[in-house]
Amino acid sequence: MSHNTFGHMFRVTTWGESHGPALGCVIDGCPPGIAFTLSDIQTYLDRRKPGQSRFVTQRREADEVKVLSGVLPQEDGVTFITTGTPISLMIENTDQRSKDYGEIARQYRPGHADYTYDVKYGLRDYRGGGRSSARETAARVAAGAIARKVLPGVTYRGALVQIGKHRINRDNWDWNEIGNNAFFCPDPEMVPVWEDYLDEIRKAGSSVGAVVEVVAEGVPAGLGAPIYAKLDQEIAAGLMSINAVKGVEIGEGFNAAELTGEENADEMRIGNDGRPRFLSNHAGGILGGISTGEPIVARFAVKPTSSILTTRQTIDKDGKEVDLRTKGRHDPCVGIRAVPIGEAMLACTIADHYLRDRGQTGRLD
Amino acid sequence: MSHNTFGHMFRVTTWGESHGPALGCVIDGCPPGIAFTLSDIQTYLDRRKPGQSRFVTQRREADEVKVLSGVLPQEDGVTFITTGTPISLMIENTDQRSKDYGEIARQYRPGHADYTYDVKYGLRDYRGGGRSSARETAARVAAGAIARKVLPGVTYRGALVQIGKHRINRDNWDWNEIGNNAFFCPDPEMVPVWEDYLDEIRKAGSSVGAVVEVVAEGVPAGLGAPIYAKLDQEIAAGLMSINAVKGVEIGEGFNAAELTGEENADEMRIGNDGRPRFLSNHAGGILGGISTGEPIVARFAVKPTSSILTTRQTIDKDGKEVDLRTKGRHDPCVGIRAVPIGEAMLACTIADHYLRDRGQTGRLD
Amino acid sequence: MSHNTFGHMFRVTTWGESHGPALGCVIDGCPPGIAFTLSDIQTYLDRRKPGQSRFVTQRREADEVKVLSGVLPQEDGVTFITTGTPISLMIENTDQRSKDYGEIARQYRPGHADYTYDVKYGLRDYRGGGRSSARETAARVAAGAIARKVLPGVTYRGALVQIGKHRINRDNWDWNEIGNNAFFCPDPEMVPVWEDYLDEIRKAGSSVGAVVEVVAEGVPAGLGAPIYAKLDQEIAAGLMSINAVKGVEIGEGFNAAELTGEENADEMRIGNDGRPRFLSNHAGGILGGISTGEPIVARFAVKPTSSILTTRQTIDKDGKEVDLRTKGRHDPCVGIRAVPIGEAMLACTIADHYLRDRGQTGRLD
Amino acid sequence: MSHNTFGHMFRVTTWGESHGPALGCVIDGCPPGIAFTLSDIQTYLDRRKPGQSRFVTQRREADEVKVLSGVLPQEDGVTFITTGTPISLMIENTDQRSKDYGEIARQYRPGHADYTYDVKYGLRDYRGGGRSSARETAARVAAGAIARKVLPGVTYRGALVQIGKHRINRDNWDWNEIGNNAFFCPDPEMVPVWEDYLDEIRKAGSSVGAVVEVVAEGVPAGLGAPIYAKLDQEIAAGLMSINAVKGVEIGEGFNAAELTGEENADEMRIGNDGRPRFLSNHAGGILGGISTGEPIVARFAVKPTSSILTTRQTIDKDGKEVDLRTKGRHDPCVGIRAVPIGEAMLACTIADHYLRDRGQTGRLD
Repeated sequence: MSHNTFGHMFRVTTWGESHGPALGCVIDGCPPGIAFTLSDIQTYLDRRKPGQSRFVTQRREADEVKVLSGVLPQEDGVTFITTGTPISLMIENTDQRSKDYGEIARQYRPGHADYTYDVKYGLRDYRGGGRSSARETAARVAAGAIARKVLPGVTYRGALVQIGKHRINRDNWDWNEIGNNAFFCPDPEMVPVWEDYLDEIRKAGSSVGAVVEVVAEGVPAGLGAPIYAKLDQEIAAGLMSINAVKGVEIGEGFNAAELTGEENADEMRIGNDGRPRFLSNHAGGILGGISTGEPIVARFAVKPTSSILTTRQTIDKDGKEVDLRTKGRHDPCVGIRAVPIGEAMLACTIADHYLRDRGQTGRLD
Repeated sequence: MSHNTFGHMFRVTTWGESHGPALGCVIDGCPPGIAFTLSDIQTYLDRRKPGQSRFVTQRREADEVKVLSGVLPQEDGVTFITTGTPISLMIENTDQRSKDYGEIARQYRPGHADYTYDVKYGLRDYRGGGRSSARETAARVAAGAIARKVLPGVTYRGALVQIGKHRINRDNWDWNEIGNNAFFCPDPEMVPVWEDYLDEIRKAGSSVGAVVEVVAEGVPAGLGAPIYAKLDQEIAAGLMSINAVKGVEIGEGFNAAELTGEENADEMRIGNDGRPRFLSNHAGGILGGISTGEPIVARFAVKPTSSILTTRQTIDKDGKEVDLRTKGRHDPCVGIRAVPIGEAMLACTIADHYLRDRGQTGRLD
Repeated sequence: MSHNTFGHMFRVTTWGESHGPALGCVIDGCPPGIAFTLSDIQTYLDRRKPGQSRFVTQRREADEVKVLSGVLPQEDGVTFITTGTPISLMIENTDQRSKDYGEIARQYRPGHADYTYDVKYGLRDYRGGGRSSARETAARVAAGAIARKVLPGVTYRGALVQIGKHRINRDNWDWNEIGNNAFFCPDPEMVPVWEDYLDEIRKAGSSVGAVVEVVAEGVPAGLGAPIYAKLDQEIAAGLMSINAVKGVEIGEGFNAAELTGEENADEMRIGNDGRPRFLSNHAGGILGGISTGEPIVARFAVKPTSSILTTRQTIDKDGKEVDLRTKGRHDPCVGIRAVPIGEAMLACTIADHYLRDRGQTGRLD
Repeated sequence: MSHNTFGHMFRVTTWGESHGPALGCVIDGCPPGIAFTLSDIQTYLDRRKPGQSRFVTQRREADEVKVLSGVLPQEDGVTFITTGTPISLMIENTDQRSKDYGEIARQYRPGHADYTYDVKYGLRDYRGGGRSSARETAARVAAGAIARKVLPGVTYRGALVQIGKHRINRDNWDWNEIGNNAFFCPDPEMVPVWEDYLDEIRKAGSSVGAVVEVVAEGVPAGLGAPIYAKLDQEIAAGLMSINAVKGVEIGEGFNAAELTGEENADEMRIGNDGRPRFLSNHAGGILGGISTGEPIVARFAVKPTSSILTTRQTIDKDGKEVDLRTKGRHDPCVGIRAVPIGEAMLACTIADHYLRDRGQTGRLD
């Protein structure tokens, strides 16, 4: 019954709304003895932060994280060591413009959670979307920065692979390009195409969907569990919990529906190092819910931002039909900022399963 | 930490392997006072049962369910009333041929969980795939039959919408056709195409993937929860926990990546009955993780059966390279039998959220 | 939300009623590779079994356990090896006399859960107390037998230390005496006193309460967790979940209220083996919720059996006042059979915490 | 796996150490629409606050609570309405004297968790006891203040009933006296006895244990659950999780061991209002784990404060034997301040079970 918690041994509980004083998370179950600095977290928060380019929302948030508990500050003044007790991280909201929410407090924005929150709870925090705001994901990214340190030797990376109908050419994939553009795009040839396309979308006050791919390399074989704690299932759940995500796939994903057993099989041989290796990775690094040692590959689809400048039909709290045009600062493609969030969810899920596996089996990878 | 449990208030714990004496589940948290008969469960088990057509495995299992606890048998001799205590359901394995597992006990079948189980646990039950066998899903279907009765007025249905590259024509969709063919296919024009295609696959000792769509109609608005208990997230997790599933999507799913905000928005009006209605359902019945009152629509991709008659390269327990050809009875397209399983997972997830919502908000739908 | 489950990594879900076809449990999260035989379980079931002496209920139950899943049977025909998947254990009810429950189905027996079940669920399984029957504890004892093997080197033992006002003399404590009498009494001088006293109680159709002490020796320091997963807290919860238990204490327990800080402190020195040792164990082996390495000592109070032959005032389902005299086979002192149950709960709790500690800290004791 | 969380539907996660910047809690699952003010919380925090009399620690903490999320502030400027999303409460530490922890960082104080934390985690936050400090309980008291509002009509009260060997006379019990003395003592005749006794203890630099009784009146029948979610079990777990608690009992508690079935039975009749009533309450308001409608009565024993001025033998981190004398500000009897904490745990547990019952059964009390 954890509506705002994910993970089992590495548990993350987030709290906070878009326009309250702060948001944050509590990480419970983190192993003791892990060293980190504020900048280890800030690096990832900055990747998710709004206002980084013209293709994301212009809201200005410092997104500075504070560590309130669960650590022993070291004498160097910058290093924290985890103590095994709950780590409380807090990010203050600084750009919460006070304004009149008169209409928005009463009208249901299409595609947003306004109507469903009101039906469920009988009221809602209409200020900036309240709890349903994507601002909540800052807490995940902060937690993910700690999670990355739990199982050493794993690289968690993400990339945007599709905006609208424009898909990257996978043959051009270069992880080094990710930081060279505003899209976390691994295909340098796609960058100008997306720039032109998104400029058009942005100027039209429109928005568009996207697909993100996240990859974890260096995950040892044996993490995950059969049946209802499958590693792929929990990765899917983690990614699906990100705002605006409508689909998740592992390895071949939906494409597997078109393959034959021969095409989809990942055959095995013994590598030069004497260790088992797979000749392909259609499985995306997971078989029977358990990691194979191959890179774990997941993709998720992000719907277009629901806030657009075109007037749409909707109703209000009193059941009156109204026409609504969303104002304010918004992302033309929320999929962009979803990249670091997807990485964080992947890191948290794998950290969790590493501890669960170690608990049940006593294996130390 | 529920490796073999799903749900929070309507909790299902399954147990059992392919070739042990029995398999089953324990349902905890079911509301009291629900009436059901064995045939209410058997109906759904029969839909999943092997041996129903030439397109599914020829293993013969009676799949007869026994109710061991949690009910008050009524005087009519057929009706059970739930008492609110754990419902234990058991299905005995009857077709567990005793045989020599010599080779299979040592060799890792590509695409199967043999290697990953061995790495994780240091040993595995190699008899019929052990816990990773799709036989486990019989327990889910049984649980789903009870779950269907928790929130009255909801219809849970599923259909196969794609086999290999052959997708149904959605304009032909007729739920009444589902029972008229061996595929749970809603498009009668597609049936002969699939028959020919699967006969070919089957004769070649090959297999192919598929896509299943499941729909819940009549779910009231307000079920689900924000953030880490999103209704779509938990549906995705439930479907992804089914063997061989590699992708899940809700509503527009991956197609949402190609849409603009205008195209994807579900506008609202007031219906003739004075109640809110949506003019479209791109969202698949869920906004912000909470149901909208529209049909809940999910799809999942099932990979091709890994057991094929073509010889594949692999290794054995000792790290020796071997060539392996799977024998035995198998489904050319496991996606077919996944239809009733998907329905069951959807029903269990919605039953769970109905109780969770009632607990937190006190709403009685 | 685990109404019928306890534990987190070593999770036990029990099911079944007194007069249904069977009862049992599912153990999820057990480490792989643990060897056991049926007689390893049966030994403990036999200690709890009814009909062992004139001081316990004369109901006859074979209490034979079946292992339905989660194991790989070995070639010797008697040994099972756990596979890490759910272990399903089942005990069939054999002495469920068919009878007319007419009155008892309608009247609320004082001290029993009849009234509260009816209020909560709107109905109840009145046959033999249904789910509230102490028969459920057979499943715990079976699970405990497996739990004992999870952390090697620990001895779990229990004793009855008080019946009515008659308390044992702790100076006479001899664990070897436990098996020499019908009471699990460690003080041979108390045995004849209890025999006379309980004969009197039994002949009068009365009942009396008792206190049980359970001890775990060999538990390494460091198990447990601060705050809401304190080892003493979870032991207390486990013992309090046993039917008829009304109080639980650790170490000095309630006596600690009378002590000063000087009297209660367990001082430390370095032992001859160079390892830390405590000079006393007022703490009962737990400080700050974490084990100290000293024996873990807990006691629990069991109320007198509510079923007595004296007529008592009560009401029935229709709110009519009635006088009720319980018939049937009952324990004059249910505390006796609570000894193996208490041991089982202690073993399960410690097994669970051993795995949890291993997961979070990576320590291998 | 909730080391720092309690509750299932009304879930409280606490975080923070004695000498970090702040401590707090996140309440997840609180029903929407509950109105409260800061002073509703502060009232209870002030009762727990140090420095209220010479019998409690002289540490000075404002213990001012901030509400960071989960509420919709109302126009009156003081009222918050819960929105159903996580409520984050924070209390800043203001009296965290910077000092040299040199010795205490290395030496294990007898009776404290220093040694066990170090063994478990390999390090610990030695500043003021870190996470094991009783300061953590401020967060529980804050959460309890919200919990009190979940099930209207219930009164949660607590009293100190024993200090050392001095027990109150229950015939003198007067709830109105609780606020008239420094001990939450309901027996005015006992107050001067305790004053003299504790002055003596305090001047000697010693400490002493105590027993607290907490009572919930107005709880409807039907809350709780059979087996592993028994209401008494979860109350016991909640109380046992409070620092320094060594024993818990419900109703007659350990005294039940001395009673016969006749003495212990709570007979039933129909009251003048036509509703069932019990003629006595030996059960402490709970039968079979489910509330009876009678007052719920629990008691818990608190050990003497471990920090005393007498020198004690212990060891340090390097395994060297040392003599240690605790300095600093401490409570001569921590049992006193445990009263509001016990009330808070009782309120949280009952709120949780109210929501769980409503979820499973649909009953609205």
